[in-house]
Amino acid sequence: MIRLHAHPFSTFSRRVKIAMLEKNIPHEDVFVDLAKRQQRTPEYLALNPYARVPTLEEDGFVLYESSAILMYLEDEHPEPALVPAGAKGRAEVDMHLRLCDAQMATPAGTIIFQKRFFPEAKWNLESIGKASAEIAKHLAILDKQLEGVDFLVHDRYTLADIAYIPFLHFLPLMVDPASVPANVARWSAELLARPSSLETVPGQ
Amino acid sequence: MIRLHAHPFSTFSRRVKIAMLEKNIPHEDVFVDLAKRQQRTPEYLALNPYARVPTLEEDGFVLYESSAILMYLEDEHPEPALVPAGAKGRAEVDMHLRLCDAQMATPAGTIIFQKRFFPEAKWNLESIGKASAEIAKHLAILDKQLEGVDFLVHDRYTLADIAYIPFLHFLPLMVDPASVPANVARWSAELLARPSSLETVPGQ
Repeated sequence: MIRLHAHPFSTFSRRVKIAMLEKNIPHEDVFVDLAKRQQRTPEYLALNPYARVPTLEEDGFVLYESSAILMYLEDEHPEPALVPAGAKGRAEVDMHLRLCDAQMATPAGTIIFQKRFFPEAKWNLESIGKASAEIAKHLAILDKQLEGVDFLVHDRYTLADIAYIPFLHFLPLMVDPASVPANVARWSAELLARPSSLETVPGQ
Repeated sequence: MIRLHAHPFSTFSRRVKIAMLEKNIPHEDVFVDLAKRQQRTPEYLALNPYARVPTLEEDGFVLYESSAILMYLEDEHPEPALVPAGAKGRAEVDMHLRLCDAQMATPAGTIIFQKRFFPEAKWNLESIGKASAEIAKHLAILDKQLEGVDFLVHDRYTLADIAYIPFLHFLPLMVDPASVPANVARWSAELLARPSSLETVPGQ
């Protein structure tokens, strides 16, 4: 049985939960109380020395880094497929997972953490402005890739889209909503309306 | 035929070249002249909108992000294997590739770029010190994982090790050489001595 060490407010945890719901993978949720710094206990650090969530544990096998977990779940539970068949489709999903982490998750973290957990007087507006500009630049590239299609890879719902959902949820905190390019806005609305997205909205 | 758009000084290009040498994959090298900002020409941006190297092109298929390229090469050219068989071994390699990019490549870039291409008077010592401390922390985790084994995953040479080689090459620029933990020092020396590493030393 899979044990998923996670927190419902964690964007990286949420993408794994969404994939598990889509694939209907039985698992046990282990709540890691980040507010109590439970990710820094010796027990948790023995699982994941980076003190981050999520961590997957399955009969002694331990895996962290959410994108690696997503690909592992795909390999072990191939139905319904969330990666197209063949090396090229898989590689494209993989590329998008890495771009989501590098171009979206990093600046998104800068903004989300401050805006959700700090009073406004404590926000570092310079770092928020810089992160917001990075995200806007990335959205412009995504918008081109989404021209005439509903999803990022082979025009079907894949792990590449799932990886973005937790960040798209906070898009109104990150960029001026009126500035979101049309294809990204359409894609985001469709993704956020899926049952697996609605079931994992943080703070319900 | 694969065309690899790359630059010999690029750490991310080098890891792909090493895997190609290990697997003896026929390909054509396309030199992207970063000094002349050739990565920002409309032709290159049409291939890779992030203006980075390397980019792989193969009969109309385009793939960027070096770690995704490494996994794709493994899928298309499985011999000699640089990933252990089975979903778990593959997932562990994938996890290490992501950790290398997040915990090593990012702070390494901060240091390498300044120390190699800027005069010492222009170095930002605060950012270099912070990056160096991050790398030292990561090396301590790697050192534990390398206790009693020669390689990161299943004690055999895999893409996980290859991903680190271009950064280990610059380790003396990044942390005090006397402070490198013993297992990491041994691992690094073994990796850097391989023919595929020697053949790709930058600036030969």
